[in-house]
Amino acid sequence: MERFFASDNCSGVHPEILKAIEAVNKGHVVGYGDDIYTKKAIEQFQKEFGEDVDVFFTFLGTGANVTGISSVLNPYQAVICAESAHINEDECGAVERFSGSKLIPIETHNGKLTVELIEPHYKAIGFEHHAQPKVISITQTTELGTVYRPGEIKKITDWAHQRNLLVHMDGARIANAAVFLNIPFKAFTKDVGVDILSFGGTKNGLMYGEAVVFFNSHLAQNYKYIRKQGMQLASKMRFIAAQFDAYFKNTFWQNLAKNANEVAQYLADEIKVFPFIELTQKVESNGLFVKLPKELAEALQEEIFFYDWDESNNVYRWMCSWDTTKDDVQSMIRLIQQKAKHLQLI
Amino acid sequence: MERFFASDNCSGVHPEILKAIEAVNKGHVVGYGDDIYTKKAIEQFQKEFGEDVDVFFTFLGTGANVTGISSVLNPYQAVICAESAHINEDECGAVERFSGSKLIPIETHNGKLTVELIEPHYKAIGFEHHAQPKVISITQTTELGTVYRPGEIKKITDWAHQRNLLVHMDGARIANAAVFLNIPFKAFTKDVGVDILSFGGTKNGLMYGEAVVFFNSHLAQNYKYIRKQGMQLASKMRFIAAQFDAYFKNTFWQNLAKNANEVAQYLADEIKVFPFIELTQKVESNGLFVKLPKELAEALQEEIFFYDWDESNNVYRWMCSWDTTKDDVQSMIRLIQQKAKHLQLI
Amino acid sequence: MERFFASDNCSGVHPEILKAIEAVNKGHVVGYGDDIYTKKAIEQFQKEFGEDVDVFFTFLGTGANVTGISSVLNPYQAVICAESAHINEDECGAVERFSGSKLIPIETHNGKLTVELIEPHYKAIGFEHHAQPKVISITQTTELGTVYRPGEIKKITDWAHQRNLLVHMDGARIANAAVFLNIPFKAFTKDVGVDILSFGGTKNGLMYGEAVVFFNSHLAQNYKYIRKQGMQLASKMRFIAAQFDAYFKNTFWQNLAKNANEVAQYLADEIKVFPFIELTQKVESNGLFVKLPKELAEALQEEIFFYDWDESNNVYRWMCSWDTTKDDVQSMIRLIQQKAKHLQLI
Amino acid sequence: MERFFASDNCSGVHPEILKAIEAVNKGHVVGYGDDIYTKKAIEQFQKEFGEDVDVFFTFLGTGANVTGISSVLNPYQAVICAESAHINEDECGAVERFSGSKLIPIETHNGKLTVELIEPHYKAIGFEHHAQPKVISITQTTELGTVYRPGEIKKITDWAHQRNLLVHMDGARIANAAVFLNIPFKAFTKDVGVDILSFGGTKNGLMYGEAVVFFNSHLAQNYKYIRKQGMQLASKMRFIAAQFDAYFKNTFWQNLAKNANEVAQYLADEIKVFPFIELTQKVESNGLFVKLPKELAEALQEEIFFYDWDESNNVYRWMCSWDTTKDDVQSMIRLIQQKAKHLQLI
Repeated sequence: MERFFASDNCSGVHPEILKAIEAVNKGHVVGYGDDIYTKKAIEQFQKEFGEDVDVFFTFLGTGANVTGISSVLNPYQAVICAESAHINEDECGAVERFSGSKLIPIETHNGKLTVELIEPHYKAIGFEHHAQPKVISITQTTELGTVYRPGEIKKITDWAHQRNLLVHMDGARIANAAVFLNIPFKAFTKDVGVDILSFGGTKNGLMYGEAVVFFNSHLAQNYKYIRKQGMQLASKMRFIAAQFDAYFKNTFWQNLAKNANEVAQYLADEIKVFPFIELTQKVESNGLFVKLPKELAEALQEEIFFYDWDESNNVYRWMCSWDTTKDDVQSMIRLIQQKAKHLQLI
Repeated sequence: MERFFASDNCSGVHPEILKAIEAVNKGHVVGYGDDIYTKKAIEQFQKEFGEDVDVFFTFLGTGANVTGISSVLNPYQAVICAESAHINEDECGAVERFSGSKLIPIETHNGKLTVELIEPHYKAIGFEHHAQPKVISITQTTELGTVYRPGEIKKITDWAHQRNLLVHMDGARIANAAVFLNIPFKAFTKDVGVDILSFGGTKNGLMYGEAVVFFNSHLAQNYKYIRKQGMQLASKMRFIAAQFDAYFKNTFWQNLAKNANEVAQYLADEIKVFPFIELTQKVESNGLFVKLPKELAEALQEEIFFYDWDESNNVYRWMCSWDTTKDDVQSMIRLIQQKAKHLQLI
Repeated sequence: MERFFASDNCSGVHPEILKAIEAVNKGHVVGYGDDIYTKKAIEQFQKEFGEDVDVFFTFLGTGANVTGISSVLNPYQAVICAESAHINEDECGAVERFSGSKLIPIETHNGKLTVELIEPHYKAIGFEHHAQPKVISITQTTELGTVYRPGEIKKITDWAHQRNLLVHMDGARIANAAVFLNIPFKAFTKDVGVDILSFGGTKNGLMYGEAVVFFNSHLAQNYKYIRKQGMQLASKMRFIAAQFDAYFKNTFWQNLAKNANEVAQYLADEIKVFPFIELTQKVESNGLFVKLPKELAEALQEEIFFYDWDESNNVYRWMCSWDTTKDDVQSMIRLIQQKAKHLQLI
Repeated sequence: MERFFASDNCSGVHPEILKAIEAVNKGHVVGYGDDIYTKKAIEQFQKEFGEDVDVFFTFLGTGANVTGISSVLNPYQAVICAESAHINEDECGAVERFSGSKLIPIETHNGKLTVELIEPHYKAIGFEHHAQPKVISITQTTELGTVYRPGEIKKITDWAHQRNLLVHMDGARIANAAVFLNIPFKAFTKDVGVDILSFGGTKNGLMYGEAVVFFNSHLAQNYKYIRKQGMQLASKMRFIAAQFDAYFKNTFWQNLAKNANEVAQYLADEIKVFPFIELTQKVESNGLFVKLPKELAEALQEEIFFYDWDESNNVYRWMCSWDTTKDDVQSMIRLIQQKAKHLQLI
């Protein structure tokens, strides 16, 4: 298969994005973001989120998460997150190394934190023996493909702000959430109290580049130094900027995320015929978490690559991308049929 | 002016590089470097440096320097470097933060370290009160545009290896050095004992992406974790790889660096007519370090952007790029004439 | 009450230990451990653990834990520990800050790790996105007063060593464990595969000072630098050394820990008459974890200080010390009676 | 010799200090500084420095320096210090590791910084590529035994405060400075604008323990967490407190430092007869920096231990302590005579 279901970053770059890159490739501009293209891209963010937001580009999502979170943390403070969070499970301890801070991971059944889950870990405040919680980091969509409703987020941010905590959102797949919720980005970030946002694009058709968005200028004050020290300051910034400029124009991002979500839903519908495949999470965005017979999973993996998610429970992850087609789904379904027959599951 | 002399990273991407990016933009490939394009790009490096080298791509030069150096350091160890080194002056303390190690900066007159300069700082070995030197980091070309000769490097690496130290080269402008020396990359890196190389491309026509090259596999053993933790692991790696693949094909890099060096030399020749401009360093690559009357510098900076280098001595930096033309130089010369006349310097 | 049940570090120094300090207070000796008294103290450790162990003194238990663990870790590696571990709950994130590494806390019901509990967290090995487990840290006695049997430890160390992991023991209360098990220190540390030991004394009659003991010289190789960088190298080392020398002489430590354990057992026996007090953990050393009616706890805390342990479950901690007496217990019992009556619990 | 001239921390504890320790060794008190003895010791500091100072005890001078400085630093900020500073030369990179910040060492001829020396290193402010100076750290007495006059300090603090920098003083030998200047501690710290002080005692008759003194409560706000995370929070704090309480009573510290300074002066006078011994620094406190014929130094070092200071220039350090006597000096003089004769220097 030309396209497969391993991850949304296995896809390439949308041709329109490439064109945007090409369009800014002329002459000299001052490096490190002091150029007209970066200015324009930031304005696009400000159209989405309001003029009072501060926006900084980074190379990658891990870079956005780590530097964004670290910028408001003292090393003696801690970050509360879901155990499944990318910052906890998939960044090789980058937050701990760069910030020197502790992560407090909380088990969830669907990737979502709630005040009830957080509360028991908010303890020993003012007690110098214990790392002091300062940031709650949530992921939208979660690593399990589920989507926080605005009200769910607001409950967390209200609770946090009453305690002088800040809320960070890892929005590596924020476009897929926006499409699912069918509301503007602002409505489930700034408007419901999120303080810092890692705004992702690479998983939805960009080549590279993410953004850290601060909804409170005070928090952004020293961030430029932290981005630099965090090895996230691009010299030829215009090429990240151009991508985001094109991404927002005519809500281009929406088409891409919409396709990914729809195809994921289509795949979810199509696999219903297989009694031996079980969805372990609601399909609210572009990923499926499926429980399969181990021998079937292995047979499939001989042909196409996808990730084990929870080995001990035979759960696997299938991701759809901006470029995944219904034909790709049909190919996948045929492959499942063929392998299942061979294994005498059907 | 469409092009100016502020930095070689003010230029854009060479169209051939963009084409190479476009060419790999099809279908899905596994992310994070486990793809055919990354394999091919690494093979290009191995053609240059020998099959036994380990090559890893990062997003930027600071990322290559910091993660490359940190990968062989314990935090109680120290890095010896020139005071002018990028890692000391221009990375906002990234080495210290990521590695926890001390930098020992040494004053030089031309950006080059020598054994004689290093020796007094190699002290208190085995004495636990003092950070223990472990890495010597040199820059090629130096931040002052000068170029180490292979023999100069070998003197340092021999001395270092006799003391169980390692030598890192920051090769952000390595192509300009290779063109000046007119020898292969290998001849002034691996062959003369360099252990770890940050191989740059962004300053010579690439969009983004650098490489860390280990000349001893043992040193590379754990680097993949450090790259990830250092926020330098690209998900869509193929787009960095494609650039380097094209960069090496038919020694494409050489054309670019050659132009930059030649134009810099041309600029150096043309300014000889101005008695009030003095070169403070030999022009061995693509940068000029010039001493100007302050009022002239300021008058020029009203029209075009370039960096102050050493304010107290009225030294400024003019960089040429892969795309700088002789016409650009002539425009600059005219601008100088005009401003100098106005200031009654001529 | 002159003595209370808050913590074993609320007690002072045993007079014999003070005498030992006084005895070495004469003339000059070289600082930082290069003196005859430090040599003698280390020999005491070697008598206990074998001549091939490496011993280093630190100021405090947190210092021993953090520098001992960090000495064998790369920042991309992780430490597996019980959620209740001192390094996780009571050191304000010191391991994360000093080592840059992730902690992987595991919930336990009695403070003890087992292979079964650890196994699900030993995952993603060789996968650069995930921090790589390298050290398992266990506490003896645990923070819940329970004691690992030698066989329980060996199961963990065998499993660990098969996977190239190392095992650290936080022995802040190791003397209480030795007394409970009634075997030499060596029998439940070195002999069952522990690699690095934080050997505590402050909680058992010393003034200050702990030791890091390496059971494999290879691991100790660079530790002296790490101790210094970790701010744990005492200039007037002889005064720590003298304490440990006296501590081991005629198994002096045993008398102290034995008293603490016995008095704790006595307290456990005496409170059996109160139906409203429930032990939540077996009393295997010098601490009791008791579930009390909240109003009783608060009434008691008006008179004497002790720590809330698990507020949401009304669990409190009562610790006995080397100097706690049966009379102290009787005073406590009387206080409980009086308060319970007043609250009409009896 | 019972006493020698290696370092002022080769001496033991003054008997009065030991008595003070003994005096507080009764019953239980709450740990970690929440006790009456710690309160009393802090009051002693407040008598010296004013009621509005915040005082925290640490285990050692390195711990005071590192946690005190780090408490006001972001990792992207830098510390300006003399190249000879203890934090730069003798703490094994502890500041860099714990704070993640860069040190900017400045060469001096006598260990003293001046505004003129600092100024060229205060650059690139607001420029994110460069670590931003935030703290100037001076040492009193300097590592070369010289003493800043109050006016010299005020020039630095005024300059610093105008630029929003803070000034830290490493006062490991602050008592020797106070005796030399013959003014109160306050007159050359708080009164002349020092912001944070590491107040040492170990080198002047204490067993262990130093203090971090903040002259601005705002700066002290989070320090308690940083002390804990920095492994400097003593559980049995009363034993540090008792030492400082006794240290201040009847200006006891003064007797000790006075003796050390006077004996150093006496030694300086007595060696004048040796034409082959040259003082390289003024003797303003308790240390002598002497240039000796190498063979003489080595002959002396066969008998007694002292440190090489600057090997390439044959400079050695002789320190006097609170307990050094004129007889000790005479023994030293006799030893020099004897060795010099043998070497035919006389």
